[in-house]
Amino acid sequence: MTKKRPLILVTNDDGITAPGIRTLIEVMKELGDVVVVAPDSPQSGMGHAITISDTLFCEQVTIKENYKHKEYSCSGTPADCVKIATQEILHRKPDLCVSGINHGSNSSINVIYSGTMSAAVEAGVEGIPAIGFSLLDYSLNADFEPTKKYVKAITKNVIKNGLPTGVVLNVNIPKLSASEIKGMKVCRQANAHWEEEFDKRTNPQGRDYYWLTGTFVNKDKGEDTDEWALQNGYVSVVPVQFDLTAHHFLDDLNTWELND
Amino acid sequence: MTKKRPLILVTNDDGITAPGIRTLIEVMKELGDVVVVAPDSPQSGMGHAITISDTLFCEQVTIKENYKHKEYSCSGTPADCVKIATQEILHRKPDLCVSGINHGSNSSINVIYSGTMSAAVEAGVEGIPAIGFSLLDYSLNADFEPTKKYVKAITKNVIKNGLPTGVVLNVNIPKLSASEIKGMKVCRQANAHWEEEFDKRTNPQGRDYYWLTGTFVNKDKGEDTDEWALQNGYVSVVPVQFDLTAHHFLDDLNTWELND
Repeated sequence: MTKKRPLILVTNDDGITAPGIRTLIEVMKELGDVVVVAPDSPQSGMGHAITISDTLFCEQVTIKENYKHKEYSCSGTPADCVKIATQEILHRKPDLCVSGINHGSNSSINVIYSGTMSAAVEAGVEGIPAIGFSLLDYSLNADFEPTKKYVKAITKNVIKNGLPTGVVLNVNIPKLSASEIKGMKVCRQANAHWEEEFDKRTNPQGRDYYWLTGTFVNKDKGEDTDEWALQNGYVSVVPVQFDLTAHHFLDDLNTWELND
Repeated sequence: MTKKRPLILVTNDDGITAPGIRTLIEVMKELGDVVVVAPDSPQSGMGHAITISDTLFCEQVTIKENYKHKEYSCSGTPADCVKIATQEILHRKPDLCVSGINHGSNSSINVIYSGTMSAAVEAGVEGIPAIGFSLLDYSLNADFEPTKKYVKAITKNVIKNGLPTGVVLNVNIPKLSASEIKGMKVCRQANAHWEEEFDKRTNPQGRDYYWLTGTFVNKDKGEDTDEWALQNGYVSVVPVQFDLTAHHFLDDLNTWELND
């Protein structure tokens, strides 16, 4: 990367006014020139959705009067924000894309449902080094102060070292005070899943409907996983790829009688 | 798997009335007992979105009077359909989940944007063998007849062999006549991406908006990729995993000065 101040694209999935992205902007302003392109409303659970059957609005907004960088509010998903930022706002690839800080965990299997991580992955697909940050606290009043040190340290490392093609980082931060966090751990994604429960109700017109709820189940006993790290007071750093090929199964699959 | 007729969950992302899912249902009825739970409207490009901030409706519908299996129309995403099918409709895991047949390609990087594949992945996360099928023809009048032979052959193989934990199949079928298709090829996901272009317009109220368009770019010269197979007249079969950890980068990442 260049030695001049890097151009940093900041986005998220909780919406442009969420406290988490405000913290991320603060930290990034210390490290580079910031442009914000983020959804105009919460997009949690949007996964890697993109807007292909609807129009997209994207307009400059002023969130804080004393901010000197430019911010844009977009009607689309986090992945849309990255696409439109590169093509229509920056007219170049930023040197880095950071997404978050998400209000809530994106560890283990949550990565596939995560709008925060889809923005980072979208940037990665476009060849931009990218990091998604999440704090394990869903509250709008979450304390993001303890996250700053780690967000800054990881970002500085990415600016210094770059990232290999096809890899982005998924960083999750436990809900602990600064003194309780033990440091950072490089991890693999834990093998965990959600056991869904649907809360069935009836609306005033007599029609049944459901709310999706669920219980998170981690059966992975490994001490090298993001879940282990987070439960033991560490910030988890998982390198994430978007070549989804199960390479380990190719040989077996080739023994199948597919063309008989 | 059991020797009695397997219970097959059928879903898609083009909506329950799309021609593609009708073909898939026809083939699956030859192989097992079918239950359909699919979106009430098109969900293309929804990626792995789930509905966590809104209500879900899911109701039994009759699409064709002479169909004896049960069909349910759901207001949510493809991933929602799999979750609600397992928990609220079947009250058990189906023996197999098939998704599609999608109107349009889900090869290479399209897998991450694909609602069709997110349904298959969601089933995989829940431990259900799963396959996503796509035909490289966006038209609602697409000819699905030539796909039947391949859909049946792959599904029979999965019923016979099962799939390893953490792996689902992404099957793409070229837009060719039955006699032109050369057979099936086991492939890896090509390293390709979209170069976006936004079509900027102004609405009657004077507000700018955009339509997302783009050009598909495949720089991967490999002859073992899904793109190569499809361009050369083969049906591509890619095993897909949802452990997104970039295992090959863990050692390097551990050399970073993260805790200094």
